[in-house]
Amino acid sequence: MWGSKSIKEEKIFGNVDVVASSKDRNYRYIPKQYNIPATASYFHYTTNNTIEGTQMHEVPNTTVPLVCDMSSDILSRQMDFTRYGLIYAGAQKNIGAAGVNLVIVNRNMLGKVSRKLPTMMDYRQHIENGSMVNTPPVFAVYVCLLTLRWLKEQGGVAGVEKINEQKAKLLYDTLDELPIFTPAVDKVDRSLMNVVFTMPDAALEKDFLETCKKENLVGVKGHRSVGGFRVSLYNALPLSSVQVLTEVMKQFALQNA
Amino acid sequence: MWGSKSIKEEKIFGNVDVVASSKDRNYRYIPKQYNIPATASYFHYTTNNTIEGTQMHEVPNTTVPLVCDMSSDILSRQMDFTRYGLIYAGAQKNIGAAGVNLVIVNRNMLGKVSRKLPTMMDYRQHIENGSMVNTPPVFAVYVCLLTLRWLKEQGGVAGVEKINEQKAKLLYDTLDELPIFTPAVDKVDRSLMNVVFTMPDAALEKDFLETCKKENLVGVKGHRSVGGFRVSLYNALPLSSVQVLTEVMKQFALQNA
Repeated sequence: MWGSKSIKEEKIFGNVDVVASSKDRNYRYIPKQYNIPATASYFHYTTNNTIEGTQMHEVPNTTVPLVCDMSSDILSRQMDFTRYGLIYAGAQKNIGAAGVNLVIVNRNMLGKVSRKLPTMMDYRQHIENGSMVNTPPVFAVYVCLLTLRWLKEQGGVAGVEKINEQKAKLLYDTLDELPIFTPAVDKVDRSLMNVVFTMPDAALEKDFLETCKKENLVGVKGHRSVGGFRVSLYNALPLSSVQVLTEVMKQFALQNA
Repeated sequence: MWGSKSIKEEKIFGNVDVVASSKDRNYRYIPKQYNIPATASYFHYTTNNTIEGTQMHEVPNTTVPLVCDMSSDILSRQMDFTRYGLIYAGAQKNIGAAGVNLVIVNRNMLGKVSRKLPTMMDYRQHIENGSMVNTPPVFAVYVCLLTLRWLKEQGGVAGVEKINEQKAKLLYDTLDELPIFTPAVDKVDRSLMNVVFTMPDAALEKDFLETCKKENLVGVKGHRSVGGFRVSLYNALPLSSVQVLTEVMKQFALQNA
């Protein structure tokens, strides 16, 4: 969804070459074979698909600068940030509260646009003004500070990555073990942040949703455009929540065997 | 300051005619005689100068559309909003928390730009998407809701306007009564939101600032670019705060007579 919006936006000002898409199978896998033209100004991609539950586990192999939307998995895993020309990420997943956008830009990427830019759309102005071109959203920025302090206490990104891996492993193992649940995407492309799955029929899905509600498991309903279930495992979610969920899933599978 | 920033920004894309300025007297009055060319696409102005403490009490008399920055006095007084083509205002004064910007636009103003616009800079896109082109800053929006409910309880804008007038009258009357304090701007142009004044010398100003601190009167120091004192009377400040301040001012004047 965000990749498509990005394509639409980029088309306003430049020539866009869409080198790969998994639309043919409803975005339920990550394309593997594609060519990035060496003449491209940059290659844009989104690391994690929050709606379908896929994630790119490898950095694309190319010599052109990488521009990357990491909104939904930044700070969830260690990455080689030096490989990117520009990274952007909305704060509302792993950084803090909605209203802040993080941009990490290699200065070499700047100053290449000849057309006139509104100050707000010119990263050089934001750098020059210490990210305070206008009045900052102080509360949301403060929540980011508190969240980053909390992240440090978890052992930083390396520490939280281990917990995220445990959470995802426990949930995917449970899904693979119980035939009543069907993971929605290709195994190699599974997201560690958003786990999407379906059930054999609508009646069972309704039953399971009600069971979850009864057990105080909220926010597991799939995105309206996909259906089924979506369990988000962002940094803030503790392993214990996944333990409770997987126990409920096992019980439900037993009762409906 | 914000008017100057606006001029700078407008110059990126259009021809700007600065029809009036009070720079000759450090912005301590509102220019009265100026001509707005009838051929202009719009006339831009800022209603209230938070730094110097001036305010435009009249709507400029012109047939060209008015574009107005009301950041620091919106919702503080009744106005004929139908006279404007576009109004914008940062939320952080009278609307709610920083991170939200209110834009009121007459649809007739839209669609006149032929150059390509980023989606984020195109008001038509914001309208079409119900102000949710991207993830909204939910906390700041919620604070706006609470503030607007509170405003309703005060009798709406009409109700709060009366309180604002009382607050400003009490403070300006006190300043006019006590020779030790000098209001910074022309009487007819005084702001009802930001009251700026100075004292005869730096030593007295330092003394008075310390007195304020001792009496738990905070945030009265003038903007770093102006000096002296600035008392902001935004909607959220109760009349009782001004009563306390003016008592302290009277006491201070007596002791330093």
